[in-house]
Amino acid sequence: MQLYNYFRSSASYRVRIALALKGLDYEYVPVNLPANEQMGESYAAVAASRLVPLLKDGDKVLTQSLAIVEYLDETHPQPPLLPADPVGRARVRALALDVACEIHPLNNLRVLRYLVHDLKVADDDKDRWYRHWVETGLASIERQLAGHPSTGRCCHGDRPTLADIALVPQIHNAQRFACRLDHVPTVMRVFEHCMTLEAFAKTQPSACPDAR
Amino acid sequence: MQLYNYFRSSASYRVRIALALKGLDYEYVPVNLPANEQMGESYAAVAASRLVPLLKDGDKVLTQSLAIVEYLDETHPQPPLLPADPVGRARVRALALDVACEIHPLNNLRVLRYLVHDLKVADDDKDRWYRHWVETGLASIERQLAGHPSTGRCCHGDRPTLADIALVPQIHNAQRFACRLDHVPTVMRVFEHCMTLEAFAKTQPSACPDAR
Repeated sequence: MQLYNYFRSSASYRVRIALALKGLDYEYVPVNLPANEQMGESYAAVAASRLVPLLKDGDKVLTQSLAIVEYLDETHPQPPLLPADPVGRARVRALALDVACEIHPLNNLRVLRYLVHDLKVADDDKDRWYRHWVETGLASIERQLAGHPSTGRCCHGDRPTLADIALVPQIHNAQRFACRLDHVPTVMRVFEHCMTLEAFAKTQPSACPDAR
Repeated sequence: MQLYNYFRSSASYRVRIALALKGLDYEYVPVNLPANEQMGESYAAVAASRLVPLLKDGDKVLTQSLAIVEYLDETHPQPPLLPADPVGRARVRALALDVACEIHPLNNLRVLRYLVHDLKVADDDKDRWYRHWVETGLASIERQLAGHPSTGRCCHGDRPTLADIALVPQIHNAQRFACRLDHVPTVMRVFEHCMTLEAFAKTQPSACPDAR
């Protein structure tokens, strides 16, 4: 398998964690987003979406990080990344989507660029925007984790699931942009536990081949 | 079952379509987003996320539209809303996430409000922002649908899947905001086919009890 990704892309980090949890080897293919490599001809020939991450599994081309993680879970079932029961699966997927639909899309590179270059938003206001969506989005996740009977050392029980795979990269981004995190103690407890696990630690942005 | 939703929320419309495809009855509970009802005490007591849609199935509370649709598909398997094979499932999920992560989050009500009220973006620029993400996001989906051997009358084959459930509400929004759509002929062909199906037509925003 070949993973096209960028060290700082949190959606890429999700897939790296999943591959590590499954114990799967892959070739790391860096795509330099700040240099707009994803829009170049050679990447566009692989990726109709022109987004990272993208996983090639033989002749199959897979996109969208959460869809890739579900694919890996279906094709390599051990260890499972979703609970066995439909209600638990729905909770884990909803937590992952709380990151992937409510926080991350507002703060990725192309959106921040549009704010600054097209809407002429000042840098301070752009940073305020970034922190607003991270802090309110994580507060929503905190309300869903804190005191919930299914929350364990991880978001759902004591083993990592799709929810942790989405949450942990978002916290890395939040720390990088100096977001407030003292209002989400359960989120941070889960994050700190996950970072003690090799699959999360060895795939983090700073450990990637293209890290600068 | 009770569905908390808002007629114009495209994420709500996704769940209405899925419930209709499955032939499931439910109570329609309107939550008035422009009046901020989702932030009120009575809704917050039900919804830790303070977002719509939310589905109550007995004592189970389910959030995030795509997670709800997957839950309905797992608990009521007929007709299936995902293909049987992992690669097909990944394609359908990725197309749905292309709407749910790349287009819709940038254009929902609270984001548009933040642009105008907090960042003081002019109305014209806000509309330009809206159309930019719709038009570039749909162009990406067009590239993935056009000429792909799995694309049929619907996004994947001839029966509606999660991909159509995500795409059709986005087109309703695009039309409402006068976005360009002549660059996505395959998307529009799929949209027009889906709108001939009762499950999509009878649940559309204008047909909802709270439509104004």
